[in-house]
Amino acid sequence: MKIARVAGTVVSTVNSPIFDHRRLLFCDYLTPDGEVTGDYVIAVDGVEAGPGEIVLIMDEGTGARQIVGEAIAPIRAMVVGIIDFIGS
Amino acid sequence: MKIARVAGTVVSTVNSPIFDHRRLLFCDYLTPDGEVTGDYVIAVDGVEAGPGEIVLIMDEGTGARQIVGEAIAPIRAMVVGIIDFIGS
Amino acid sequence: MKIARVAGTVVSTVNSPIFDHRRLLFCDYLTPDGEVTGDYVIAVDGVEAGPGEIVLIMDEGTGARQIVGEAIAPIRAMVVGIIDFIGS
Amino acid sequence: MKIARVAGTVVSTVNSPIFDHRRLLFCDYLTPDGEVTGDYVIAVDGVEAGPGEIVLIMDEGTGARQIVGEAIAPIRAMVVGIIDFIGS
Amino acid sequence: MKIARVAGTVVSTVNSPIFDHRRLLFCDYLTPDGEVTGDYVIAVDGVEAGPGEIVLIMDEGTGARQIVGEAIAPIRAMVVGIIDFIGS
Repeated sequence: MKIARVAGTVVSTVNSPIFDHRRLLFCDYLTPDGEVTGDYVIAVDGVEAGPGEIVLIMDEGTGARQIVGEAIAPIRAMVVGIIDFIGS
Repeated sequence: MKIARVAGTVVSTVNSPIFDHRRLLFCDYLTPDGEVTGDYVIAVDGVEAGPGEIVLIMDEGTGARQIVGEAIAPIRAMVVGIIDFIGS
Repeated sequence: MKIARVAGTVVSTVNSPIFDHRRLLFCDYLTPDGEVTGDYVIAVDGVEAGPGEIVLIMDEGTGARQIVGEAIAPIRAMVVGIIDFIGS
Repeated sequence: MKIARVAGTVVSTVNSPIFDHRRLLFCDYLTPDGEVTGDYVIAVDGVEAGPGEIVLIMDEGTGARQIVGEAIAPIRAMVVGIIDFIGS
Repeated sequence: MKIARVAGTVVSTVNSPIFDHRRLLFCDYLTPDGEVTGDYVIAVDGVEAGPGEIVLIMDEGTGARQIVGEAIAPIRAMVVGIIDFIGS
Protein backbone atom coordinates (compact mmCIF):
# COMPACT_ATOMS: atom_id res chain seq x y z
CA MET A 1 0.00 0.00 0.00
CA LYS A 2 1.04 3.61 -0.52
CA ILE A 3 0.46 7.03 0.98
CA ALA A 4 -1.30 9.73 -1.00
CA ARG A 5 -3.07 13.03 -0.52
CA VAL A 6 -6.56 13.61 -1.86
CA ALA A 7 -6.53 16.37 -4.47
CA GLY A 8 -10.09 16.32 -5.70
CA THR A 9 -12.99 14.45 -7.15
CA VAL A 10 -13.19 12.93 -10.61
CA VAL A 11 -16.50 13.31 -12.39
CA SER A 12 -16.72 10.58 -14.98
CA THR A 13 -19.36 8.75 -16.93
CA VAL A 14 -18.85 5.26 -15.55
CA ASN A 15 -21.75 2.87 -15.51
CA SER A 16 -21.51 0.78 -12.36
CA PRO A 17 -23.73 0.60 -9.28
CA ILE A 18 -20.72 0.99 -6.99
CA PHE A 19 -20.53 4.64 -7.95
CA ASP A 20 -24.03 5.44 -6.77
CA HIS A 21 -22.80 6.05 -3.25
CA ARG A 22 -19.07 6.44 -3.69
CA ARG A 23 -16.83 8.99 -5.30
CA LEU A 24 -13.73 8.67 -7.45
CA LEU A 25 -10.88 10.55 -5.81
CA PHE A 26 -7.87 12.00 -7.57
CA CYS A 27 -4.95 11.32 -5.21
CA ASP A 28 -1.32 12.48 -5.42
CA TYR A 29 1.19 9.88 -4.27
CA LEU A 30 3.57 11.18 -1.62
CA THR A 31 7.20 10.45 -0.77
CA PRO A 32 8.07 9.15 2.71
CA ASP A 33 8.68 12.81 3.62
CA GLY A 34 5.24 13.87 2.50
CA GLU A 35 6.28 15.51 -0.76
CA VAL A 36 4.26 15.10 -3.95
CA THR A 37 5.93 12.55 -6.24
CA GLY A 38 4.28 13.60 -9.49
CA ASP A 39 2.60 10.21 -9.75
CA TYR A 40 -1.08 9.85 -8.95
CA VAL A 41 -3.92 7.39 -8.79
CA ILE A 42 -7.66 7.60 -9.22
CA ALA A 43 -9.19 5.58 -6.43
CA VAL A 44 -12.65 4.75 -5.19
CA ASP A 45 -13.40 6.46 -1.88
CA GLY A 46 -13.87 3.84 0.82
CA VAL A 47 -13.57 6.03 3.89
CA GLU A 48 -15.27 9.32 2.99
CA ALA A 49 -11.97 11.15 2.66
CA GLY A 50 -11.88 14.81 1.65
CA PRO A 51 -9.43 17.03 -0.23
CA GLY A 52 -6.12 17.51 1.59
CA GLU A 53 -6.39 14.42 3.73
CA ILE A 54 -3.51 11.92 3.82
CA VAL A 55 -4.81 8.50 2.91
CA LEU A 56 -3.80 4.90 2.48
CA ILE A 57 -4.15 3.56 -1.06
CA MET A 58 -4.61 -0.10 -1.90
CA ASP A 59 -4.09 -0.62 -5.60
CA GLU A 60 -5.46 -4.11 -6.25
CA GLY A 61 -8.72 -5.03 -7.92
CA THR A 62 -9.68 -8.13 -5.96
CA GLY A 63 -9.28 -6.42 -2.60
CA ALA A 64 -11.08 -3.31 -3.82
CA ARG A 65 -14.07 -5.28 -5.07
CA GLN A 66 -14.26 -7.12 -1.74
CA ILE A 67 -14.49 -3.88 0.19
CA VAL A 68 -17.31 -2.42 -1.86
CA GLY A 69 -19.09 -5.74 -1.52
CA GLU A 70 -19.62 -6.38 -5.20
CA ALA A 71 -17.95 -9.23 -7.03
CA ILE A 72 -18.14 -7.43 -10.35
CA ALA A 73 -17.02 -3.81 -10.46
CA PRO A 74 -14.76 -1.77 -12.74
CA ILE A 75 -12.39 -0.71 -9.99
CA ARG A 76 -8.81 -1.44 -9.03
CA ALA A 77 -7.54 1.24 -6.64
CA MET A 78 -9.26 2.21 -3.41
CA VAL A 79 -8.78 4.60 -0.50
CA VAL A 80 -8.89 2.20 2.45
CA GLY A 81 -7.77 4.38 5.34
CA ILE A 82 -7.06 7.87 6.62
CA ILE A 83 -3.54 8.13 8.04
CA ASP A 84 -3.30 9.70 11.46
CA PHE A 85 0.47 9.61 11.85
CA ILE A 86 3.57 7.51 11.19
CA GLY A 87 5.60 6.67 14.27
CA SER A 88 9.00 5.08 14.60
CA MET B 1 -6.99 3.84 -12.27
CA LYS B 2 -5.32 6.38 -14.51
CA ILE B 3 -6.24 9.17 -16.90
CA ALA B 4 -5.43 8.90 -20.59
CA ARG B 5 -6.36 10.43 -23.92
CA VAL B 6 -7.49 8.28 -26.81
CA ALA B 7 -5.04 8.61 -29.72
CA GLY B 8 -6.40 6.08 -32.15
CA THR B 9 -7.48 2.57 -32.93
CA VAL B 10 -5.25 -0.49 -33.06
CA VAL B 11 -5.97 -2.92 -35.86
CA SER B 12 -4.62 -6.27 -34.81
CA THR B 13 -5.17 -9.89 -35.65
CA VAL B 14 -6.48 -11.10 -32.32
CA ASN B 15 -8.79 -14.07 -32.23
CA SER B 16 -11.33 -13.51 -29.50
CA PRO B 17 -15.10 -12.98 -29.61
CA ILE B 18 -14.82 -9.92 -27.38
CA PHE B 19 -13.36 -8.01 -30.30
CA ASP B 20 -16.35 -8.53 -32.54
CA HIS B 21 -18.11 -5.52 -31.09
CA ARG B 22 -15.32 -3.68 -29.35
CA ARG B 23 -12.24 -1.81 -30.50
CA LEU B 24 -8.71 -1.71 -29.16
CA LEU B 25 -7.80 1.88 -28.36
CA PHE B 26 -4.30 3.32 -28.27
CA CYS B 27 -4.33 5.69 -25.27
CA ASP B 28 -1.66 8.13 -24.09
CA TYR B 29 -1.35 8.37 -20.33
CA LEU B 30 -1.60 11.94 -19.04
CA THR B 31 -0.04 13.76 -16.11
CA PRO B 32 -2.30 15.38 -13.49
CA ASP B 33 -1.96 18.55 -15.55
CA GLY B 34 -3.17 16.87 -18.71
CA GLU B 35 0.22 16.58 -20.39
CA VAL B 36 1.25 13.46 -22.31
CA THR B 37 3.61 11.34 -20.19
CA GLY B 38 5.17 9.34 -23.00
CA ASP B 39 3.73 6.15 -21.57
CA TYR B 40 0.72 4.53 -23.18
CA VAL B 41 -1.64 1.60 -22.94
CA ILE B 42 -3.67 -0.38 -25.43
CA ALA B 43 -7.08 -0.86 -23.89
CA VAL B 44 -10.38 -2.41 -24.88
CA ASP B 45 -13.04 0.22 -25.49
CA GLY B 46 -15.82 -0.18 -22.94
CA VAL B 47 -17.56 3.17 -23.38
CA GLU B 48 -17.41 3.93 -27.12
CA ALA B 49 -14.74 6.57 -26.66
CA GLY B 50 -13.32 8.41 -29.65
CA PRO B 51 -9.97 10.01 -30.50
CA GLY B 52 -9.14 13.02 -28.33
CA GLU B 53 -11.45 12.09 -25.47
CA ILE B 54 -10.10 11.97 -21.91
CA VAL B 55 -10.83 8.58 -20.43
CA LEU B 56 -10.46 6.51 -17.31
CA ILE B 57 -8.25 3.44 -17.69
CA MET B 58 -8.52 0.36 -15.52
CA ASP B 59 -5.50 -1.85 -16.05
CA GLU B 60 -6.47 -5.15 -14.46
CA GLY B 61 -7.49 -8.34 -16.21
CA THR B 62 -10.09 -9.70 -13.83
CA GLY B 63 -12.06 -6.47 -13.76
CA ALA B 64 -11.78 -6.06 -17.51
CA ARG B 65 -13.09 -9.54 -18.21
CA GLN B 66 -16.02 -8.92 -15.85
CA ILE B 67 -17.06 -5.82 -17.76
CA VAL B 68 -17.08 -7.46 -21.16
CA GLY B 69 -19.02 -10.32 -19.62
CA GLU B 70 -16.72 -13.10 -20.69
CA ALA B 71 -14.77 -15.17 -18.21
CA ILE B 72 -12.11 -16.01 -20.77
CA ALA B 73 -10.68 -13.17 -22.81
CA PRO B 74 -7.18 -12.01 -23.76
CA ILE B 75 -7.53 -8.56 -22.26
CA ARG B 76 -6.10 -6.70 -19.33
CA ALA B 77 -6.63 -2.95 -19.78
CA MET B 78 -9.99 -1.34 -20.43
CA VAL B 79 -11.45 2.12 -20.97
CA VAL B 80 -14.14 2.19 -18.27
CA GLY B 81 -15.22 5.83 -18.30
CA ILE B 82 -15.14 9.17 -20.03
CA ILE B 83 -13.92 11.92 -17.71
CA ASP B 84 -16.07 15.02 -17.61
CA PHE B 85 -13.97 17.08 -15.22
CA ILE B 86 -11.83 16.90 -12.09
CA GLY B 87 -12.99 19.15 -9.25
CA SER B 88 -11.33 20.00 -5.97
CA MET C 1 -1.59 -4.22 -23.25
CA LYS C 2 1.58 -3.03 -24.91
CA ILE C 3 3.27 -3.07 -28.30
CA ALA C 4 6.51 -4.95 -28.82
CA ARG C 5 8.67 -6.34 -31.61
CA VAL C 6 9.74 -9.96 -31.62
CA ALA C 7 13.53 -10.19 -31.38
CA GLY C 8 14.07 -13.92 -31.10
CA THR C 9 13.35 -17.17 -29.38
CA VAL C 10 14.35 -18.12 -25.86
CA VAL C 11 15.56 -21.68 -25.39
CA SER C 12 15.06 -22.58 -21.77
CA THR C 13 14.72 -25.67 -19.68
CA VAL C 14 11.18 -25.20 -18.44
CA ASN C 15 9.12 -28.21 -17.55
CA SER C 16 5.55 -27.56 -18.57
CA PRO C 17 3.34 -29.15 -21.21
CA ILE C 18 2.38 -25.75 -22.59
CA PHE C 19 5.84 -25.46 -24.10
CA ASP C 20 5.52 -28.61 -26.19
CA HIS C 21 3.83 -26.70 -29.01
CA ARG C 22 4.60 -23.11 -28.15
CA ARG C 23 7.73 -21.00 -28.11
CA LEU C 24 9.02 -18.41 -25.69
CA LEU C 25 9.61 -15.15 -27.57
CA PHE C 26 12.03 -12.43 -26.56
CA CYS C 27 10.18 -9.19 -27.35
CA ASP C 28 11.42 -5.58 -27.22
CA TYR C 29 8.83 -3.11 -25.97
CA LEU C 30 8.31 -0.17 -28.33
CA THR C 31 7.42 3.48 -27.80
CA PRO C 32 4.28 4.89 -29.46
CA ASP C 33 6.59 5.94 -32.31
CA GLY C 34 7.90 2.43 -32.80
CA GLU C 35 11.29 2.97 -31.16
CA VAL C 36 12.85 0.35 -28.88
CA THR C 37 12.39 1.37 -25.23
CA GLY C 38 15.17 -0.77 -23.76
CA ASP C 39 12.63 -2.74 -21.77
CA TYR C 40 11.62 -6.21 -22.86
CA VAL C 41 9.44 -9.16 -21.98
CA ILE C 42 9.66 -12.88 -22.51
CA ALA C 43 6.24 -14.01 -23.65
CA VAL C 44 4.61 -17.24 -24.74
CA ASP C 45 3.82 -17.21 -28.45
CA GLY C 46 0.06 -17.38 -28.93
CA VAL C 47 -0.15 -16.35 -32.59
CA GLU C 48 2.88 -17.92 -34.28
CA ALA C 49 4.70 -14.61 -34.54
CA GLY C 50 8.16 -14.41 -36.07
CA PRO C 51 11.24 -12.19 -35.59
CA GLY C 52 10.64 -8.58 -36.60
CA GLU C 53 6.87 -8.69 -36.33
CA ILE C 54 5.04 -6.05 -34.28
CA VAL C 55 2.88 -7.76 -31.70
CA LEU C 56 0.41 -7.12 -28.92
CA ILE C 57 1.59 -8.24 -25.48
CA MET C 58 -0.75 -9.13 -22.64
CA ASP C 59 1.22 -9.34 -19.41
CA GLU C 60 -1.16 -11.06 -17.01
CA GLY C 61 -1.04 -14.65 -15.80
CA THR C 62 -4.72 -15.46 -15.53
CA GLY C 63 -5.49 -14.30 -19.04
CA ALA C 64 -2.42 -16.05 -20.44
CA ARG C 65 -3.34 -19.35 -18.84
CA GLN C 66 -6.87 -19.07 -20.23
CA ILE C 67 -5.58 -18.68 -23.77
CA VAL C 68 -3.31 -21.71 -23.68
CA GLY C 69 -6.21 -23.65 -22.17
CA GLU C 70 -4.41 -24.91 -19.11
CA ALA C 71 -5.38 -23.84 -15.63
CA ILE C 72 -1.90 -24.52 -14.29
CA ALA C 73 1.04 -23.15 -16.25
CA PRO C 74 4.18 -21.21 -15.37
CA ILE C 75 3.42 -18.28 -17.66
CA ARG C 76 2.46 -14.67 -17.23
CA ALA C 77 3.10 -12.78 -20.47
CA MET C 78 1.73 -13.78 -23.84
CA VAL C 79 1.78 -12.59 -27.45
CA VAL C 80 -1.95 -12.32 -28.19
CA GLY C 81 -2.00 -10.52 -31.52
CA ILE C 82 -0.06 -9.31 -34.53
CA ILE C 83 -0.56 -5.59 -35.08
CA ASP C 84 -1.48 -4.58 -38.61
CA PHE C 85 -1.58 -0.83 -38.12
CA ILE C 86 -2.60 1.92 -35.70
CA GLY C 87 -5.07 4.43 -37.10
CA SER C 88 -6.35 7.70 -35.68
CA MET D 1 9.69 -10.46 -3.36
CA LYS D 2 11.84 -7.56 -2.24
CA ILE D 3 14.06 -6.57 0.67
CA ALA D 4 13.14 -3.64 2.88
CA ARG D 5 13.95 -2.15 6.27
CA VAL D 6 11.22 -1.35 8.75
CA ALA D 7 11.11 2.38 9.45
CA GLY D 8 8.10 2.68 11.67
CA THR D 9 4.45 2.06 12.29
CA VAL D 10 1.56 3.62 10.42
CA VAL D 11 -1.41 4.65 12.53
CA SER D 12 -4.42 4.77 10.28
CA THR D 13 -8.16 4.61 10.57
CA VAL D 14 -8.78 1.40 8.66
CA ASN D 15 -11.80 -0.66 9.48
CA SER D 16 -10.88 -4.31 9.12
CA PRO D 17 -10.61 -7.10 11.68
CA ILE D 18 -7.17 -8.05 10.41
CA PHE D 19 -5.77 -4.95 12.03
CA ASP D 20 -6.93 -5.89 15.51
CA HIS D 21 -3.77 -7.93 16.10
CA ARG D 22 -1.46 -6.73 13.37
CA ARG D 23 0.32 -3.50 12.64
CA LEU D 24 0.89 -1.59 9.43
CA LEU D 25 4.62 -1.11 8.92
CA PHE D 26 6.26 1.64 6.92
CA CYS D 27 9.15 -0.09 5.13
CA ASP D 28 11.94 1.43 3.01
CA TYR D 29 12.91 -0.70 0.02
CA LEU D 30 16.64 -1.43 -0.14
CA THR D 31 19.08 -1.94 -3.00
CA PRO D 32 21.01 -5.22 -3.25
CA ASP D 33 23.76 -3.42 -1.30
CA GLY D 34 21.44 -2.47 1.52
CA GLU D 35 21.04 1.19 0.60
CA VAL D 36 17.68 2.96 0.82
CA THR D 37 16.15 3.29 -2.67
CA GLY D 38 13.75 6.14 -1.90
CA ASP D 39 10.82 3.86 -2.67
CA TYR D 40 8.75 2.41 0.15
CA VAL D 41 5.78 0.22 0.91
CA ILE D 42 3.24 0.07 3.70
CA ALA D 43 2.85 -3.58 4.59
CA VAL D 44 0.93 -5.63 7.13
CA ASP D 45 3.22 -7.10 9.76
CA GLY D 46 3.16 -10.88 9.50
CA VAL D 47 6.24 -11.70 11.56
CA GLU D 48 6.27 -9.18 14.41
CA ALA D 49 9.12 -7.20 12.88
CA GLY D 50 10.45 -4.09 14.58
CA PRO D 51 12.04 -0.83 13.41
CA GLY D 52 15.45 -1.32 11.81
CA GLU D 53 14.96 -4.98 10.95
CA ILE D 54 15.61 -6.18 7.40
CA VAL D 55 12.54 -7.93 6.10
CA LEU D 56 11.13 -9.77 3.12
CA ILE D 57 8.18 -8.05 1.45
CA MET D 58 5.55 -9.87 -0.59
CA ASP D 59 3.48 -7.36 -2.51
CA GLU D 60 0.49 -9.37 -3.71
CA GLY D 61 -3.03 -9.27 -2.35
CA THR D 62 -4.08 -12.89 -2.75
CA GLY D 63 -1.01 -14.22 -0.96
CA ALA D 64 -1.31 -11.61 1.77
CA ARG D 65 -4.93 -12.45 2.47
CA GLN D 66 -4.06 -16.15 2.65
CA ILE D 67 -1.46 -15.53 5.31
CA VAL D 68 -3.70 -13.53 7.59
CA GLY D 69 -6.33 -16.23 7.12
CA GLU D 70 -9.12 -14.00 5.94
CA ALA D 71 -10.54 -14.20 2.45
CA ILE D 72 -11.69 -10.60 2.55
CA ALA D 73 -9.22 -7.99 3.74
CA PRO D 74 -8.07 -4.59 2.47
CA ILE D 75 -4.42 -5.54 2.20
CA ARG D 76 -1.94 -6.14 -0.57
CA ALA D 77 1.61 -5.96 0.81
CA MET D 78 2.87 -8.03 3.71
CA VAL D 79 6.06 -8.56 5.70
CA VAL D 80 6.47 -12.32 5.37
CA GLY D 81 9.96 -12.89 6.76
CA ILE D 82 12.91 -11.47 8.64
CA ILE D 83 16.12 -11.79 6.63
CA ASP D 84 19.05 -13.29 8.50
CA PHE D 85 21.64 -13.01 5.75
CA ILE D 86 22.20 -13.35 2.01
CA GLY D 87 24.88 -15.85 1.03
CA SER D 88 26.45 -16.57 -2.34
CA MET E 1 8.70 -13.06 -17.72
CA LYS E 2 12.19 -11.67 -17.30
CA ILE E 3 15.79 -12.81 -17.42
CA ALA E 4 17.95 -12.73 -14.30
CA ARG E 5 21.18 -14.16 -12.93
CA VAL E 6 21.26 -15.96 -9.61
CA ALA E 7 23.48 -14.09 -7.15
CA GLY E 8 22.98 -16.07 -3.99
CA THR E 9 20.67 -17.53 -1.42
CA VAL E 10 18.51 -15.62 1.03
CA VAL E 11 18.33 -17.02 4.52
CA SER E 12 15.15 -15.77 6.10
CA THR E 13 12.82 -16.70 8.89
CA VAL E 14 9.71 -17.45 6.88
CA ASN E 15 7.20 -19.90 8.23
CA SER E 16 5.77 -21.85 5.32
CA PRO E 17 6.04 -25.52 4.35
CA ILE E 18 7.03 -24.60 0.81
CA PHE E 19 10.44 -23.58 2.10
CA ASP E 20 11.24 -26.98 3.56
CA HIS E 21 12.58 -28.22 0.24
CA ARG E 22 13.08 -25.03 -1.70
CA ARG E 23 15.42 -22.08 -1.42
CA LEU E 24 14.90 -18.36 -1.81
CA LEU E 25 17.25 -17.05 -4.51
CA PHE E 26 18.52 -13.51 -4.79
CA CYS E 27 18.48 -12.79 -8.54
CA ASP E 28 19.80 -9.76 -10.45
CA TYR E 29 17.63 -8.74 -13.37
CA LEU E 30 19.56 -8.45 -16.64
CA THR E 31 19.23 -6.24 -19.70
CA PRO E 32 18.69 -7.84 -23.13
CA ASP E 33 22.48 -7.66 -23.51
CA GLY E 34 23.08 -9.55 -20.29
CA GLU E 35 24.13 -6.58 -18.19
CA VAL E 36 22.98 -6.17 -14.58
CA THR E 37 20.14 -3.62 -14.40
CA GLY E 38 20.45 -2.77 -10.71
CA ASP E 39 17.00 -4.17 -10.08
CA TYR E 40 16.58 -7.55 -8.44
CA VAL E 41 14.01 -10.03 -7.23
CA ILE E 42 13.91 -12.62 -4.51
CA ALA E 43 12.36 -15.72 -6.03
CA VAL E 44 11.56 -19.25 -4.93
CA ASP E 45 13.83 -21.77 -6.63
CA GLY E 46 11.75 -24.03 -8.85
CA VAL E 47 14.51 -25.58 -10.94
CA GLU E 48 17.46 -26.08 -8.58
CA ALA E 49 19.38 -23.17 -10.06
CA GLY E 50 22.78 -22.20 -8.69
CA PRO E 51 24.75 -18.95 -8.39
CA GLY E 52 25.77 -17.51 -11.75
CA GLU E 53 23.13 -19.29 -13.78
CA ILE E 54 20.89 -17.31 -16.13
CA VAL E 55 17.29 -17.99 -15.27
CA LEU E 56 13.72 -17.21 -16.26
CA ILE E 57 11.71 -15.35 -13.62
CA MET E 58 7.94 -15.46 -13.39
CA ASP E 59 6.75 -12.75 -11.04
CA GLU E 60 3.14 -13.67 -10.36
CA GLY E 61 1.70 -15.22 -7.23
CA THR E 62 -1.02 -17.42 -8.65
CA GLY E 63 1.32 -19.10 -11.13
CA ALA E 64 4.03 -19.50 -8.49
CA ARG E 65 1.68 -21.17 -6.04
CA GLN E 66 0.49 -23.54 -8.77
CA ILE E 67 4.03 -24.68 -9.48
CA VAL E 68 4.89 -25.47 -5.88
CA GLY E 69 1.59 -27.31 -5.64
CA GLU E 70 0.24 -25.46 -2.64
CA ALA E 71 -2.80 -23.23 -2.84
CA ILE E 72 -1.68 -21.16 0.14
CA ALA E 73 1.91 -19.94 0.18
CA PRO E 74 3.61 -16.60 0.85
CA ILE E 75 5.32 -16.41 -2.52
CA ARG E 76 5.01 -14.32 -5.63
CA ALA E 77 8.17 -14.64 -7.73
CA MET E 78 9.63 -17.92 -8.90
CA VAL E 79 12.56 -19.22 -10.93
CA VAL E 80 10.76 -21.33 -13.53
CA GLY E 81 13.53 -22.12 -16.01
CA ILE E 82 17.24 -22.11 -16.77
CA ILE E 83 17.98 -20.28 -20.00
CA ASP E 84 20.20 -22.12 -22.46
CA PHE E 85 20.42 -19.44 -25.13
CA ILE E 86 18.44 -16.78 -26.97
CA GLY E 87 18.33 -17.20 -30.73
CA SER E 88 17.05 -14.88 -33.43
